Amino acid sequence: MSGAHDAVEVIAAKRDGHALTDSQIDWVIDAYTRGDVADEQMSALAMAILLNGMERREISRWTGAMIASGERMDFGTLSRPTADKHSTGGVGDKITLPLAPLVAACGVAVPQLSGRGLGHTGGTLDKLESIPGWRASLSNQEMLAQLESVGAVICAAGDGLAPADKKLYALRDVTGTVEAVPLIASSIMSKKIAEGTGALVLDVKVGSGAFMKDLERARELASTMVALGTDAGVTTVALLTDMSTPLGLTAGNAVEVAEAVDVLAGGGPADVVELTLALAREMLAGAGRDDVDPADVLASGRAMDTWRSMIAAQDGDPEAELPTARHSHDVLAPSSGTLTRLDAMAVGMAAWRLGAGRARKEDPVQAGAGVVWHARPGDRVTEGSPLFTLLTDDESRFDRALASLEDGWDIASDGSGFEPRPLLLDRLD
Amino acid sequence: MSGAHDAVEVIAAKRDGHALTDSQIDWVIDAYTRGDVADEQMSALAMAILLNGMERREISRWTGAMIASGERMDFGTLSRPTADKHSTGGVGDKITLPLAPLVAACGVAVPQLSGRGLGHTGGTLDKLESIPGWRASLSNQEMLAQLESVGAVICAAGDGLAPADKKLYALRDVTGTVEAVPLIASSIMSKKIAEGTGALVLDVKVGSGAFMKDLERARELASTMVALGTDAGVTTVALLTDMSTPLGLTAGNAVEVAEAVDVLAGGGPADVVELTLALAREMLAGAGRDDVDPADVLASGRAMDTWRSMIAAQDGDPEAELPTARHSHDVLAPSSGTLTRLDAMAVGMAAWRLGAGRARKEDPVQAGAGVVWHARPGDRVTEGSPLFTLLTDDESRFDRALASLEDGWDIASDGSGFEPRPLLLDRLD
Repeated sequence: MSGAHDAVEVIAAKRDGHALTDSQIDWVIDAYTRGDVADEQMSALAMAILLNGMERREISRWTGAMIASGERMDFGTLSRPTADKHSTGGVGDKITLPLAPLVAACGVAVPQLSGRGLGHTGGTLDKLESIPGWRASLSNQEMLAQLESVGAVICAAGDGLAPADKKLYALRDVTGTVEAVPLIASSIMSKKIAEGTGALVLDVKVGSGAFMKDLERARELASTMVALGTDAGVTTVALLTDMSTPLGLTAGNAVEVAEAVDVLAGGGPADVVELTLALAREMLAGAGRDDVDPADVLASGRAMDTWRSMIAAQDGDPEAELPTARHSHDVLAPSSGTLTRLDAMAVGMAAWRLGAGRARKEDPVQAGAGVVWHARPGDRVTEGSPLFTLLTDDESRFDRALASLEDGWDIASDGSGFEPRPLLLDRLD
Repeated sequence: MSGAHDAVEVIAAKRDGHALTDSQIDWVIDAYTRGDVADEQMSALAMAILLNGMERREISRWTGAMIASGERMDFGTLSRPTADKHSTGGVGDKITLPLAPLVAACGVAVPQLSGRGLGHTGGTLDKLESIPGWRASLSNQEMLAQLESVGAVICAAGDGLAPADKKLYALRDVTGTVEAVPLIASSIMSKKIAEGTGALVLDVKVGSGAFMKDLERARELASTMVALGTDAGVTTVALLTDMSTPLGLTAGNAVEVAEAVDVLAGGGPADVVELTLALAREMLAGAGRDDVDPADVLASGRAMDTWRSMIAAQDGDPEAELPTARHSHDVLAPSSGTLTRLDAMAVGMAAWRLGAGRARKEDPVQAGAGVVWHARPGDRVTEGSPLFTLLTDDESRFDRALASLEDGWDIASDGSGFEPRPLLLDRLD
């Protein structure tokens, strides 16, 4: 295979609008993984793919080649079926935290390999790391053992899984080639397919705080990913969900863990509960367990029990107090009325600037930093009452965070301009 | 300026079809030269430029920024006006060799900074280096002194001239981004403007053996370059000339030097003489010396005198015997008739495969390697007489060279299919 192609030939084919052959795709992914195709060649190819697109066959082969670049996990020895969820990323999206133990408590194992946050969307691992003692890195053996004993594991993806994707993802991030549907879809699906889950539910976010700003592009991405999963024998469905408003009442790390624990305790914001249950139902159905109602399991407290076991199994202390920020600043409502708009991107940027997220991969995050909002669109607010609480360890960050929030919300005395939006926009399978 | 932009912002702007601002262009070229914009970022930008294009203002600014990345030469102290020629590259294109001394002998100084060949088109420096002792590298002082004393210099461009272009050119070569008119035009013109010539004649090749296969694309490139030169205060004209058939009767290194010397001696193939005189007239006109007829000067032997001085000034021995290849192979005409077609690309590939050119920048070239053809389209050939002579130091190269030539020519007993093509296709100023 090696030597059958050269990088310029493959780049030129895509540049000139041709579909890449299976052999070209296999070669270029393998050669890139081995370092025989250079970063500057792959980024030129990525830009050509972004601008000229890929056919379904090409995307499927590209995904397969990325899977073949590394190891593939197998949960066939587990006594339970497996299901996983992937979100394309949003603001305040802590759903994985209550969802994984809930689905596990319903009898389906959840092998959730997660990532860290970059930019305005948070990362599940960053959130969980605010729990004292908790560790993100597990060996494959530890992961398998925890799936068998607890039923749920949320951990960092090992280096062995789709290394071509790891390399390509880092490259796309610095070369303006993130926004290519074929590359986004194959990146997500190569990891999820290699991870070995039996069923997969995709939560494709749409709106200002999401990667996909409009429904059409989100639907294109969702249908591409559903096709890739189906082609690979993974039962895959996608929900398109609103991300014009942030989820719940918190964006950050420890604050989101606390909100997830509220949901597991039977409380929490209605939208977080609604989305958690909707995704749980899809995961259970995909794994052949639609006989179980996750709402009952949540109400029973068994999901909370699984949460505690899951955290403890990774050396976290589920009873420990969560870290708090050293400084807080309240934004007060300037008038009474109805909160008619709360923009997800504005809130996400504010949380990021407060230290909850990172600008570069190497940056640390602050466990206590973030934004808490005290009303959701449609809620009444009273002049002088706190609208937002900003949290950070570093006071100098308030100014830029406040600037991010500035145009991110509206209050109308008569409520005019408020349009209730459904959380669940569409479903594809 | 530094820090005012970031690479992803600039890439994304071009990716999304916007024109880059002056400030973005200045920043990205400067940052790339300094290494703050990485190769993988620049190659993604180059691909976006290739696919989404650039406006005239952008190309002009890009060219200016590349000039500003290095030093700019000044021939204002010379006692003569200056004129230079640039060819976009063809097969058998040895025109610079007789042209530079001819124009110098007419009283106009020629500061010709040349390159080496890559791929199927030869490089002027490679050709001249087949002359024993001749050296391509001169200091700026040596160059200026030779221009004053001899009137013509053909040498390697120093590292100080448009270093951004040097870096970008090498990058484009390996990333499938050579074929972008804005990048080709700005690459050529940044070097020629920085070189400090007062007048410039562009020989834009069109046809199978040229970079531009069709007249429309060639005209676009030519008019872009003429505009760039004019904007920069350099008197610039472009000739569009045929490169479907190779120039003269030789492609290689020493064989092309020998052909150039034939022209200077008053002989040589008619097409080489015609193009040399046409370009000389344009250079003289651009430098304000259209009172001199280069045909008279060529006939007088003064161009040959200048050639000898020019070679000797760079330590070459103009009387030395040129190196010859260790092996030769004749291709005989299989039938009698008229040679109706001789494809430039086929001949160029054969010469390259025989060792006259290089596949990678680091490769050496063979001085004696190349192809000599014994007929030009329209000429009669006799069955069994030599049609091509292939020359190489390495016998194992014949097979692949012969394969390149195979479909590169036609003989018709009745001459049918032969269409005489003009050498000069168009002129832009």
